[in-house]
Amino acid sequence: MTGRWGEDDERGALNLQTPETVLAGLTAARAGRVYSLGLPLQRSGMPHVAHRPTPQRLTLTSHTDDAMYASFGAAPGTGSHEDVVVLPTHEATHMDALGHVFDGDTLYNGFPADSMSTYGGLAHCGIEKAGPIVARGVLFDMGPLAPGHVITVAELEACGVSLTPGSVALVRTGWLEAFDPHAGLTYEQPGLGVDAAAWLGEQGVIAVGADNTAVEAMPFDGGGFMPVHVELLVRRGIYLLEHLVLEHLVRDGVDEFLLVCLPLSITGASGSPVNPVAIA
Amino acid sequence: MTGRWGEDDERGALNLQTPETVLAGLTAARAGRVYSLGLPLQRSGMPHVAHRPTPQRLTLTSHTDDAMYASFGAAPGTGSHEDVVVLPTHEATHMDALGHVFDGDTLYNGFPADSMSTYGGLAHCGIEKAGPIVARGVLFDMGPLAPGHVITVAELEACGVSLTPGSVALVRTGWLEAFDPHAGLTYEQPGLGVDAAAWLGEQGVIAVGADNTAVEAMPFDGGGFMPVHVELLVRRGIYLLEHLVLEHLVRDGVDEFLLVCLPLSITGASGSPVNPVAIA
Amino acid sequence: MTGRWGEDDERGALNLQTPETVLAGLTAARAGRVYSLGLPLQRSGMPHVAHRPTPQRLTLTSHTDDAMYASFGAAPGTGSHEDVVVLPTHEATHMDALGHVFDGDTLYNGFPADSMSTYGGLAHCGIEKAGPIVARGVLFDMGPLAPGHVITVAELEACGVSLTPGSVALVRTGWLEAFDPHAGLTYEQPGLGVDAAAWLGEQGVIAVGADNTAVEAMPFDGGGFMPVHVELLVRRGIYLLEHLVLEHLVRDGVDEFLLVCLPLSITGASGSPVNPVAIA
Amino acid sequence: MTGRWGEDDERGALNLQTPETVLAGLTAARAGRVYSLGLPLQRSGMPHVAHRPTPQRLTLTSHTDDAMYASFGAAPGTGSHEDVVVLPTHEATHMDALGHVFDGDTLYNGFPADSMSTYGGLAHCGIEKAGPIVARGVLFDMGPLAPGHVITVAELEACGVSLTPGSVALVRTGWLEAFDPHAGLTYEQPGLGVDAAAWLGEQGVIAVGADNTAVEAMPFDGGGFMPVHVELLVRRGIYLLEHLVLEHLVRDGVDEFLLVCLPLSITGASGSPVNPVAIA
Repeated sequence: MTGRWGEDDERGALNLQTPETVLAGLTAARAGRVYSLGLPLQRSGMPHVAHRPTPQRLTLTSHTDDAMYASFGAAPGTGSHEDVVVLPTHEATHMDALGHVFDGDTLYNGFPADSMSTYGGLAHCGIEKAGPIVARGVLFDMGPLAPGHVITVAELEACGVSLTPGSVALVRTGWLEAFDPHAGLTYEQPGLGVDAAAWLGEQGVIAVGADNTAVEAMPFDGGGFMPVHVELLVRRGIYLLEHLVLEHLVRDGVDEFLLVCLPLSITGASGSPVNPVAIA
Repeated sequence: MTGRWGEDDERGALNLQTPETVLAGLTAARAGRVYSLGLPLQRSGMPHVAHRPTPQRLTLTSHTDDAMYASFGAAPGTGSHEDVVVLPTHEATHMDALGHVFDGDTLYNGFPADSMSTYGGLAHCGIEKAGPIVARGVLFDMGPLAPGHVITVAELEACGVSLTPGSVALVRTGWLEAFDPHAGLTYEQPGLGVDAAAWLGEQGVIAVGADNTAVEAMPFDGGGFMPVHVELLVRRGIYLLEHLVLEHLVRDGVDEFLLVCLPLSITGASGSPVNPVAIA
Repeated sequence: MTGRWGEDDERGALNLQTPETVLAGLTAARAGRVYSLGLPLQRSGMPHVAHRPTPQRLTLTSHTDDAMYASFGAAPGTGSHEDVVVLPTHEATHMDALGHVFDGDTLYNGFPADSMSTYGGLAHCGIEKAGPIVARGVLFDMGPLAPGHVITVAELEACGVSLTPGSVALVRTGWLEAFDPHAGLTYEQPGLGVDAAAWLGEQGVIAVGADNTAVEAMPFDGGGFMPVHVELLVRRGIYLLEHLVLEHLVRDGVDEFLLVCLPLSITGASGSPVNPVAIA
Repeated sequence: MTGRWGEDDERGALNLQTPETVLAGLTAARAGRVYSLGLPLQRSGMPHVAHRPTPQRLTLTSHTDDAMYASFGAAPGTGSHEDVVVLPTHEATHMDALGHVFDGDTLYNGFPADSMSTYGGLAHCGIEKAGPIVARGVLFDMGPLAPGHVITVAELEACGVSLTPGSVALVRTGWLEAFDPHAGLTYEQPGLGVDAAAWLGEQGVIAVGADNTAVEAMPFDGGGFMPVHVELLVRRGIYLLEHLVLEHLVRDGVDEFLLVCLPLSITGASGSPVNPVAIA
């Protein structure tokens, strides 16, 4: 799909987001109910991939810093609490930038993988190029699936959910609900197969989200390394949202909604922690 | 206002957010235009308060980690870019949790300031208690104001903007547009005075945002330490959004919109970086 | 022992270090053999206590940052590698500051525990008050001890090692040699009992080190919380060195040496990673 | 000098450190006086290079975490203070690993610059390959030099200091004593020229240290990028120690001493913060 939106394009499927698709998303919110789809960001109890540091909230200033606040003119007993957070960009609930994955030494739209430099980060396709997602969202509720289950096109079609260009597809596999923090993150996870991912892409979605670690099935469909990431991010410029909390949507029978996902504009980053909402 | 929503309440003015106010917010988005209100998160060129570390994006994995990705089963030339970010929660564009500021040794709703512990963070009124803001937003465009200017009730009223309960008030002072990264953050800033803040609070706003560092005027109105923070966060449970980019709204003459602000659910944190949107 | 070196003292047993004890230490180095006693600082494979972040080395700049180095005037192919490290001060091989532990709300020499503030760190007894240790070191080789074994005075005496004022006592329990990274850090560890710690203190040691996590036995001798830390750090102002690699000393039969331990001068910190040497 | 110690060598001039040179170093300590050569590691007031984050000590646990310590079995008023530090490896007083700088796409001994990977760090010539420096140290006191002054061989010779193989040369330029934290780090600094560096190398030093930012003169001698780093680290495998505090040695007229420098064994790192001592 290289060049679909021009050879300089770094926004991929977000080019499909137009005032019309935004308005279509807004009309999907009829009841005014707001569902938060993000996991807590905390040191423990959450899915964690071993090579990343665990998220850390560290206190920068607190009520113990009276002397400091007095030097700023504060009366005793007055001051502020502040933190520093240390966060991997691909932990907890997060959004992948188009530059997250490379294949054949290239990122989305043919940008070279090595246009990522250590200090500067992604010169192309960083998360700051994406901007907000405001779209019609739909839920494919696949019920609880077995570890390693590869979701097929037929299974998606059986959900009877209609997609429209510029919308976002969320897939519930049941993996997150079954997650046991004491056992830790399991490698075998249900998720999309490559054909199912391509089928979603053909229908013009901006992003695909799921309640598992990588949207895609693990072990990976057909071998290789992250083939659904390659199909969606690299070939099609479609964004991925991972570790979404979807059980409340299922509980309330919500399958169409306004989806708002607001990545932080971290210059050069390969992704961002997010806390998306579905508004029904 | 202690106890207005019960003595256990930790959400403050977000209790005003109901399906009805959400729907009122949605109707404010008529054209489908999306404005991102967040600043870039990067090491330099942005407003920075000296006692905080500068935001850091550090690369965790890159195309140079072939050996690592090969061990995960990736073919040569295939892999992923990942980062770790180190972010103060009150830098760049951010949202204050109700537990951010304390006065007379208490947080919002009478919770003791020292219920914040270093390791655990805020036991009460942390940002994870807030959840998403989805609301009607209105802009008070005060034009460029002089450094230190204290905004009054009369000046807000002169904008002719109508507030409704459950809405969010954004105030443009012009400070951010005048910000010069080479000069660094200036202490003297235009912003709200205490009376103007209380007036906004009386009209039932959920949150007040501005394009300056602290929403409030600096030097602080009437002396003391962050009196507008005390008036809004501590006394009224009203959230603050700081360092908002508002110039595009002004340019397009947008003064009413759907405001969506999605803080990260960082357990115990006193705030969160955010990237809010105004949808007109 | 409060007040032994004056009511303002923050250096404790390092007051025993004099030119004479330093020279005594130097004479213990007769063969010119240098033994490094520090563990590697890395993400995995090392003893790790759950509430701390794992040590992280993150790359700041690398050979991929050509554009950045070109802007500094570097020719292509020329530049520098730099890192940022994120380190808990009480992981891996480290030295405890006198202000690390408090008991009865007080630190060493009666300083209040709450003279530690979040932003400023330890106002009293921080690691920057300690300075370098240059001393005669002796090894108590207790052979491999069973998990939870509490070392007694009699067992130390049976080693036949003579202590002199201003020296450092290192105790090998065998715990580190038996450490299995796959199993993780075990709570039950052999180590000093309170009487043995007091006995070492009576003989004028500056510091006590060991190859286990806390110098002391776990579960703690006699109940309570870190009673040997309280006995040595808080009551006596004696420093602790933890997670020392001692097996090479044992292998070579070295039981007397020059011990040099050089904590980083981190203002306000409760400890420092160190990489001490024994010079035989 | 590639291959001088074999084509697999990653330790460079530390191969010159033998029991004999260690003993020679020990004999240089005659009075038992210990001089700490490290700067404080703290957020402000210290030399700081703009592209690096400032050093941060953040509190991990404190006396406010009673509930946490109670869960570990601690009585009220008993617990421990712990920190997390975020440190660039080339700030404050630090030691460069041989892999720090590359020229012509190669590190010391011909290892390719791109054997540094982002996640793993330096596969060759990381600081963990160095180990402790225990050596005879000598001081070249050049008095206060003008900004940008390039030290020559003749100037070093005029100091009348005798070097021996396996020793460490420290050069005082006076830059650090003149450093004004309010003005920040100045680019023009006195330091070694390339010829002077080569001359030191010819005499068999293990390491060269100085009280300035880069050992070498800035602007760089003869143009190019860090030519003294290239001459010493890359071509000769000689270690660099930067931002040393040398004024106390000068004050006491100490020009020969035992130098001990103990880098942290950070796997893959390009350097380490250190706090070396001179023992006279």
